[in-house]
Amino acid sequence: MTPALGVCYYPEHWPEAGWERDAASMAEVGIRIVRIGEFAWSRLEPTPGDLQFDWLIRAMDVLGRHGLKVVFGTPTATPPRWMIDKHPDMLAVDARGQRKGFGSRRHYDFSHLGYRAECQRIVKLLADAIGQHPALSGWQTDNEYGCHGTTYSYSPAALSGFRLWLEQRYGTIEALNEAWGNVFWSMEYNRFDQIELPNLLVCEAAPAHDLDFRRYASDQVAAFNKVQFDILKQARPDLPVIHNFMSRYTEFDHYDVAETLDIASWDSYPLGHLATSNEPDEVKRLYLRQGDPDNAAFHHDLYRTVGHGRWWIMEQQPGPVNWGIFNPDPLPGMARLWAWEAFAHGAEVVSYFRWRQAPFAQEQMHAGLLRPDSEPAPAYHEATQVAEELRATGLAGIAAKGRVGIVFDYQSEWAWEIQPQARGFTHGAHVRAIYAAFRKHGVDIDILSPHTKSFAGYDIVAIPALFAWNETLRTAIAEFEGHLLIGPRSGSKTENFSIPAALGPDLPQNLLAAKVIRVDSVDPQLEVEVKGGGGSVHHWRERIETTAEVVIEDAENWPVLLSQGKLFYLAASGSKALVQRVVDYLIAEADLPTLALPAGVRCRVRDGMRVYVNYGAGPATLTPAADETGYVLGGVDMPAAGVTLARLATAG
Amino acid sequence: MTPALGVCYYPEHWPEAGWERDAASMAEVGIRIVRIGEFAWSRLEPTPGDLQFDWLIRAMDVLGRHGLKVVFGTPTATPPRWMIDKHPDMLAVDARGQRKGFGSRRHYDFSHLGYRAECQRIVKLLADAIGQHPALSGWQTDNEYGCHGTTYSYSPAALSGFRLWLEQRYGTIEALNEAWGNVFWSMEYNRFDQIELPNLLVCEAAPAHDLDFRRYASDQVAAFNKVQFDILKQARPDLPVIHNFMSRYTEFDHYDVAETLDIASWDSYPLGHLATSNEPDEVKRLYLRQGDPDNAAFHHDLYRTVGHGRWWIMEQQPGPVNWGIFNPDPLPGMARLWAWEAFAHGAEVVSYFRWRQAPFAQEQMHAGLLRPDSEPAPAYHEATQVAEELRATGLAGIAAKGRVGIVFDYQSEWAWEIQPQARGFTHGAHVRAIYAAFRKHGVDIDILSPHTKSFAGYDIVAIPALFAWNETLRTAIAEFEGHLLIGPRSGSKTENFSIPAALGPDLPQNLLAAKVIRVDSVDPQLEVEVKGGGGSVHHWRERIETTAEVVIEDAENWPVLLSQGKLFYLAASGSKALVQRVVDYLIAEADLPTLALPAGVRCRVRDGMRVYVNYGAGPATLTPAADETGYVLGGVDMPAAGVTLARLATAG
Amino acid sequence: MTPALGVCYYPEHWPEAGWERDAASMAEVGIRIVRIGEFAWSRLEPTPGDLQFDWLIRAMDVLGRHGLKVVFGTPTATPPRWMIDKHPDMLAVDARGQRKGFGSRRHYDFSHLGYRAECQRIVKLLADAIGQHPALSGWQTDNEYGCHGTTYSYSPAALSGFRLWLEQRYGTIEALNEAWGNVFWSMEYNRFDQIELPNLLVCEAAPAHDLDFRRYASDQVAAFNKVQFDILKQARPDLPVIHNFMSRYTEFDHYDVAETLDIASWDSYPLGHLATSNEPDEVKRLYLRQGDPDNAAFHHDLYRTVGHGRWWIMEQQPGPVNWGIFNPDPLPGMARLWAWEAFAHGAEVVSYFRWRQAPFAQEQMHAGLLRPDSEPAPAYHEATQVAEELRATGLAGIAAKGRVGIVFDYQSEWAWEIQPQARGFTHGAHVRAIYAAFRKHGVDIDILSPHTKSFAGYDIVAIPALFAWNETLRTAIAEFEGHLLIGPRSGSKTENFSIPAALGPDLPQNLLAAKVIRVDSVDPQLEVEVKGGGGSVHHWRERIETTAEVVIEDAENWPVLLSQGKLFYLAASGSKALVQRVVDYLIAEADLPTLALPAGVRCRVRDGMRVYVNYGAGPATLTPAADETGYVLGGVDMPAAGVTLARLATAG
Ligand SMILES: [Zn+2]
Ligand SMILES: [Zn+2]
Ligand SMILES: [Zn+2]
Repeated sequence: MTPALGVCYYPEHWPEAGWERDAASMAEVGIRIVRIGEFAWSRLEPTPGDLQFDWLIRAMDVLGRHGLKVVFGTPTATPPRWMIDKHPDMLAVDARGQRKGFGSRRHYDFSHLGYRAECQRIVKLLADAIGQHPALSGWQTDNEYGCHGTTYSYSPAALSGFRLWLEQRYGTIEALNEAWGNVFWSMEYNRFDQIELPNLLVCEAAPAHDLDFRRYASDQVAAFNKVQFDILKQARPDLPVIHNFMSRYTEFDHYDVAETLDIASWDSYPLGHLATSNEPDEVKRLYLRQGDPDNAAFHHDLYRTVGHGRWWIMEQQPGPVNWGIFNPDPLPGMARLWAWEAFAHGAEVVSYFRWRQAPFAQEQMHAGLLRPDSEPAPAYHEATQVAEELRATGLAGIAAKGRVGIVFDYQSEWAWEIQPQARGFTHGAHVRAIYAAFRKHGVDIDILSPHTKSFAGYDIVAIPALFAWNETLRTAIAEFEGHLLIGPRSGSKTENFSIPAALGPDLPQNLLAAKVIRVDSVDPQLEVEVKGGGGSVHHWRERIETTAEVVIEDAENWPVLLSQGKLFYLAASGSKALVQRVVDYLIAEADLPTLALPAGVRCRVRDGMRVYVNYGAGPATLTPAADETGYVLGGVDMPAAGVTLARLATAG
Repeated sequence: MTPALGVCYYPEHWPEAGWERDAASMAEVGIRIVRIGEFAWSRLEPTPGDLQFDWLIRAMDVLGRHGLKVVFGTPTATPPRWMIDKHPDMLAVDARGQRKGFGSRRHYDFSHLGYRAECQRIVKLLADAIGQHPALSGWQTDNEYGCHGTTYSYSPAALSGFRLWLEQRYGTIEALNEAWGNVFWSMEYNRFDQIELPNLLVCEAAPAHDLDFRRYASDQVAAFNKVQFDILKQARPDLPVIHNFMSRYTEFDHYDVAETLDIASWDSYPLGHLATSNEPDEVKRLYLRQGDPDNAAFHHDLYRTVGHGRWWIMEQQPGPVNWGIFNPDPLPGMARLWAWEAFAHGAEVVSYFRWRQAPFAQEQMHAGLLRPDSEPAPAYHEATQVAEELRATGLAGIAAKGRVGIVFDYQSEWAWEIQPQARGFTHGAHVRAIYAAFRKHGVDIDILSPHTKSFAGYDIVAIPALFAWNETLRTAIAEFEGHLLIGPRSGSKTENFSIPAALGPDLPQNLLAAKVIRVDSVDPQLEVEVKGGGGSVHHWRERIETTAEVVIEDAENWPVLLSQGKLFYLAASGSKALVQRVVDYLIAEADLPTLALPAGVRCRVRDGMRVYVNYGAGPATLTPAADETGYVLGGVDMPAAGVTLARLATAG
Repeated sequence: MTPALGVCYYPEHWPEAGWERDAASMAEVGIRIVRIGEFAWSRLEPTPGDLQFDWLIRAMDVLGRHGLKVVFGTPTATPPRWMIDKHPDMLAVDARGQRKGFGSRRHYDFSHLGYRAECQRIVKLLADAIGQHPALSGWQTDNEYGCHGTTYSYSPAALSGFRLWLEQRYGTIEALNEAWGNVFWSMEYNRFDQIELPNLLVCEAAPAHDLDFRRYASDQVAAFNKVQFDILKQARPDLPVIHNFMSRYTEFDHYDVAETLDIASWDSYPLGHLATSNEPDEVKRLYLRQGDPDNAAFHHDLYRTVGHGRWWIMEQQPGPVNWGIFNPDPLPGMARLWAWEAFAHGAEVVSYFRWRQAPFAQEQMHAGLLRPDSEPAPAYHEATQVAEELRATGLAGIAAKGRVGIVFDYQSEWAWEIQPQARGFTHGAHVRAIYAAFRKHGVDIDILSPHTKSFAGYDIVAIPALFAWNETLRTAIAEFEGHLLIGPRSGSKTENFSIPAALGPDLPQNLLAAKVIRVDSVDPQLEVEVKGGGGSVHHWRERIETTAEVVIEDAENWPVLLSQGKLFYLAASGSKALVQRVVDYLIAEADLPTLALPAGVRCRVRDGMRVYVNYGAGPATLTPAADETGYVLGGVDMPAAGVTLARLATAG
């Protein structure tokens, strides 16, 4: 698979007279894929039933004439205004009970079946009209599901859907009362139609109530996507159906939605994602113009798994954007580096957003490859360079399988949002901390679904802060022969959000003879040193009744790391230094080979080449690794935003 | 009166087969009182009129067989879901106008007369059914009135109730317009039915309007309680009616509610109360695992007065809880220390919450005496120790009368919330600061109601930041022969929230010839040194026209402390050091004997014994006091969380 | 024009028996103008149609007998409660969709035509009743338009008004779709009645949508004022119509509203305005009891222009107020200083708010010239002193024309609130920074409207952060022969909130050959040094394609200041030091004479006298300026809060 560059293009925003010149310039840059269509419904159907697909076909004709392939985005994220006249109740309702009106985007409720039927209709019409167009090479469903907090709606449609979903899940109201623990505060229901959504209560809902609502909402996103997938695959079984996901967005289960996708893609805006993250200020300052050196990579690895091995960047930041609190100019070279890093992690396509900066409407301050006056912006030249380098290096193949796997689970994100017990305790933060600690050593990592059947082939697997086991995962754990790191808090709940009868981590005694009997949670600023030098615990500490060996403990004699054979249990949250120490301990135990990377430099292997990227704001010097036979691009001296490709001996 | 341990128990949460074993274990620990029932309505009446009291009687039988006495909590804090079908408008409405739905607890509006009738019905049925049960030893009404901000509701029921209440209070609309000063912004009403609740206005309501709404809301809580009290006393005139109040909760007037209570109790969660308080960070850190060393004691003394001398801890924290932002593990020994401190202040019962940690629903992370797997948690052993020590020491009697009285007034809390004039200015903070300053010297303190008829017997009485005098209090002041400290801001308003014609502090000239003519309020971080060494003023300073003596003044020559005979007026808010200096000055003037206590150690006298508790995280050494003849428990060397009982000579 | 003191008085708040004594005391102080009436509707018309004007006429009789002139405030800011019964939908709705009820003030919606008719009715009745009263000397319309966020309402009345306004503005829905860029996210409308208000959307509205809503809302304020102006001028063409505006309030376009005003006035509360501003903490601390030394002056200069050269202080802070988070006592002398500074900037009247502190209702903690017990407060004596000094100095005339003009534009405030691109980027902050930098040198400044026809007579004109040019301004710029400073961000948008085709700053090439091609925005804490010593850039930096000379650039080689002839373009936001450096550079280029002022001292020229005021908390020593011939009041040694008047040679 030879990777390609793409771009997002909105012919409806520009005079038709300019399309030809745009297409020619795209081809000149070396772009091969053009995404179009996903916000164009008001131009495709200006009034109900008045279909205007001609201009779209002409635009695809122009692009096709220049050898460009089209990914068509279904326009369902932005229904036209007349749709609200037809379905006034299709608008979502926020958690405070307020209807969210028309006038921006994503103004629909995933639970609204009338709107789902409208989407079915327009997608079918479009599939009929352009499905056989020679330039067409794939489909994008909708756009950024859930963006702007749109997964959850507290509407009448959501309420009736939720009640039905519960009835299907539990069968009887008695079973639901039991599962949710409703006896606790006299919360028992007599009938399903008495159940309310978990918002606007006196205090918090039962956690199982809240969790089921999130499961329900996630299922609606999956069902919404399936409607389009079924039509599009029927029209063109040979073309991939893709959706563009986002960074650190976890309100629905992406693994579930991707059951009706061929390829996962995501929209990568490293500067804004760093700014809106909860990284400490010093990290935000250090990587202000480059982005977090591990965040894009983490999502690359995540979406590779979500996409069953196939993934794209559908939108790549090309310069300053508009939606951050502040919107810095990227360091020169970052638009090239980000693309190279994506390819290194296996991206098939990196598509810049957008071709030309639009001078009007909400995103007028969002850079493109062209300025609003059609002159090239810096990323235009960087994209051209990437296209040339792709040809020159001949990179192809797929991303190498990692030696380390880390389980990432959407339900665990929901669970700890519902019941943090210590403010800020999240599943994702634990996953990312371990990810970064391995990656500092140049280790290739795979992100794994919580329904992974087997861990075979990995040296080390980590399952941090996972809320509840499932049978598949229990089997994978039991059969795994490598080193396994779990905890803190992993397995501390049942699927119904109760404490397991045997207490967490709730693994068979032969695997781990341990019970978490008490949790101490404190402000993360309060740290306790860990014995033996290096790192501190904070935020979360577990008292454990165990016969396993205590490998590390803190200055107050609470356990930090237990081991029983090759299974390791982390009993606390800790500083970055402590996470690194634990990871280093596991690497040593598992005899995992590592690299010595300068600060700010990261790497990934694909197709027999190791791609180094320098996120640092200054130059860095590589130490050639033993398995490398020379450089295909760049060399040991990396400038800021530099990219180096080393050829591996094994690929010889 | 020999004090006893209790526990909160929910038989409906557990299989009936385990009740017997639970009761036996409770008796083994030394528990004598078991509170049950207060969240069980959906099990007592699963559908309207279908009364299921048998299980309750069986549970009481089991407990009684093991010598345990039952306090039955009426289940009115958690009406079942079917009740909402009967009375959809019984749900409260928040200040933003949103209905607060079913799905947690306290989902009722105090103003809703239909629900009040339902409570009357179920309480009557329960009194009939279990009122004569031999194990029954008392009643709890409802649970934690006002918890989760439920005193105030902005519902149609509240609106019509408020209008009626105003009509009864003022008689004519002219009188109301006059009292509220409605001429000010053309706010005059023509009829009572034009009056709205003071929420969702353009800017703030007239302060008298806001204050009357709070008085109204408080009266509804009292009326709600009276309904149950009347039934329960009629059924069993010999059994006490109790309610469990909370920490730093002031939305209704507890003195008023307690007019229909025999005993006041409160729910003491020292770690969470410290965490959610506005204590400075260093205090929060120092007492992270012990709680504020003066907060529990203050409430002990407050609820002793609220309860007409009789009070309990109905819920005592036994370990980490679930509802804090963070939930630390208490220092070993604190579950014992907290119980002992309560007994020292006169508690008749200290009842741990709860017997067994529930593995399901909202409070699954809240520790109990037993773990969810029924193994003993640390507090199980500490409770056992307390029970043994109670027997060994033979503590009985009641708390000694204090030598210092401090007036605490709920209306003053409301007044300064309505009109702080300086953000953060509160009545309670002034009361607690003075309380802590006396208590540092080992002085026993009583908290006094603002309707106290006489201060006779006290050496010193303090009335800080009291919004308005009443005639009873004016008389008590005039007749008092001890030292009196008032201010700042005391007497600065009339009952109708106006400035008195003679200006504050509005006392007769022969008592205090002073007028507050101007107030300076600034950010509390801006401090002005006080002359003569020690302390600074901040936040609030009053310019005063006076013929009284200025005892202390600040570096800018504003008065700090005035005196006229034995009446002292504090004209400013100040640092802890200043409050201590003022209190020390009064102690010297009044010749009040004091103790030399190590930091973190506090004490209280009951039944001829002085109970010392060490809130410090490290050991402390006592200096034996002149009036002590030896130790009944512990000794001069107190470990962290240590308890020492000294016998007093006077008790010889 | 001899300036005068005034006071705000509410006869309806006090027993009629005291009016005479009040009037006599006012005259004794030296007060000449009394504002009355603006909150008295419920006393003027207690029930619909029951007009009670007699008391008002009697009050005016009393005042007139003591030689006092009356400004009558129309009572429309506080309609009585019965008005809501007549027009329940006249209440405004907040951005969260909640009706804002009766019970405070300003409880009306500017869009409600029924209420507008009621105002027309009462104003006509009042003009008939008191228009010929001999004491009447002017009118105030309503009170503080927009106070408490009342310019914007999201009511049905606002919605239908907005749709009509849009139809009038755009004619066709196609024109609106084009102007707003609605194609962007399929936001195109088919009909005007489909358009919603820009609140409660999924994410942000199109910026042109939001801007048009603000324009609409501003137009309603202007239309509301015009209704009253037309009646009042018809009744008494000879008397001025005035409105009292506020500090840093920009929700409507004051220039537009003032098209139907004869005089602008504003309500000056320096301490509260500083406290609620976003000045840094050290400034807030330094000027805690004096107010920002440039904020009152800025508004004096602004409202002088708004008022077509005529302006008053309608409400002057006399002591501590009630509405701040904290409410400090002013430094002794400030009530005098503030008055003198206003007169220096051309005020015709400075009117203290209020005569007597009201002991009741919302503002009971707001000081007056009298205390609630009718004794003089400190400002009473300071006002007396000012009245005497006015007589003694004989100050008259008008404020001198400034040598520097700075354009201040309300639409630019709205534009950058809608699209800051860098959080906290505002037009006003840039205007005030430049204002302060010139004023530090004792330079007299005029604030200019964005519709100023000619800059003739100014040495320097600055137009910072102006969102869009208009033709008048383009002409004024093209014809200006002085030095002109524009930027950053000036001219970066079209009137329809798009990026201009030629990119910003969008001036003719012969004036400035420059295009802003990219913007870098970062947290203002991240500073980059500027080359050549002095100042740093932060927050906002522009990349520019230009043939103009780069006069100053930063350490990373981004441009800071460009020049092309006498036109200077500022390409960045910067520290105070940088703004001062740029201003100093312009002063040197333009050869503008300056003064050497001590820190904290400011000055302004009127009627041949230079008035110095010392905002410092300590004394300061003046350096006599070359154009001064001696002192009329005070001298070179200025105490804290001191005032000095120097006579100018030119006035000889
Ligand atoms: Zn998005
Ligand atoms: Zn509670
Ligand atoms: Zn105001």
